[in-house]
Amino acid sequence: MPKLWTATIDAHRAAVRDAALNAMGELVAEHGLVALTMSQIAEKAGIGRATLYKYFPDAQAVLAAWHERQVTAHLDQLTAAVDPAAPAVARLQAVLHTYAQIQHHSASHHGGELATPLHHSDHVDRARQRLHDFVEALITEAVHAGDVRDDVATDELATYCLHALTAAGNVTSQDGVHRLVAVILTGLTASCPSVSAS
Amino acid sequence: MPKLWTATIDAHRAAVRDAALNAMGELVAEHGLVALTMSQIAEKAGIGRATLYKYFPDAQAVLAAWHERQVTAHLDQLTAAVDPAAPAVARLQAVLHTYAQIQHHSASHHGGELATPLHHSDHVDRARQRLHDFVEALITEAVHAGDVRDDVATDELATYCLHALTAAGNVTSQDGVHRLVAVILTGLTASCPSVSAS
Repeated sequence: MPKLWTATIDAHRAAVRDAALNAMGELVAEHGLVALTMSQIAEKAGIGRATLYKYFPDAQAVLAAWHERQVTAHLDQLTAAVDPAAPAVARLQAVLHTYAQIQHHSASHHGGELATPLHHSDHVDRARQRLHDFVEALITEAVHAGDVRDDVATDELATYCLHALTAAGNVTSQDGVHRLVAVILTGLTASCPSVSAS
Repeated sequence: MPKLWTATIDAHRAAVRDAALNAMGELVAEHGLVALTMSQIAEKAGIGRATLYKYFPDAQAVLAAWHERQVTAHLDQLTAAVDPAAPAVARLQAVLHTYAQIQHHSASHHGGELATPLHHSDHVDRARQRLHDFVEALITEAVHAGDVRDDVATDELATYCLHALTAAGNVTSQDGVHRLVAVILTGLTASCPSVSAS
């Protein structure tokens, strides 16, 4: 085969490949990654497709409801982890530990996808917001008690915590989970005077 | 309607709803969230479905290739952000800033789903591993230079960084991105003597 022809074929192949990858990027941006079908869900649930449609308009709605149920269960666990008599920073630490355990456990059961798996929707955003508010309230208390840095907004610190805690899904041991929480808590404290953190 | 009958209907509804939610959980655990079809990708790419199948066996493969392309582009950006003459901790800081910017930018274009959106696969794990190794190497250098804590394994610190940096996708301002990186860097430093972090 002449070299030019090979080069042309290679260029063509690269172009098709790129077109497919660009398409994937656009589809993800438009629709999110979720496209489980109502038929799949109905079959797995052992109910009729028509029945399922009486409860949910589409698969996205099932997913949102499922995620909301997960977050509600997690919030219950977090609330139960707190000793109301303890200082704010101790309560915060207990909550971070518990949430790290949830992430660690979820990852081993669901491939670690539960942390941030979903296309944005009102339902999902609401569920996430509840979790965020719960953590932010504890951080705010700890700031007032002087145990957490006050140079960063509590909203941003809560966002930092919840994302950093998803790392627990990729930590291989219980000790690793504890060390992760310790590292995250260090981030929440004021910068050490001896180390530049900016 | 008699009260018992209402209660029965309510129980039935709750059971169907629960079955659907359980099914969703199982399907996610089994297949991940990704089910974009080859037809969707081919149509979006403006190529024939048969052509697409010559390049990729299934949609999951397109997604893996797309994700690998993203990570490669990000690694190029991170490498370019580093001044080889700078101390390790300064290079680490530059890389964290750049990656935070990538996350911040991705989130505004893809709804923040690019950070950890994918079902585990060899391709994806390999791409992630390259990013992880890149960050871990910088952390290791900074530990040797005495600028990063040595009480936590560099592997765990890199995992912490990469997850915490995804928070940049939920931060609303450039200043917020900078503050996030500062908080993450604080976590990488040794615990402040005045604050208990365990």
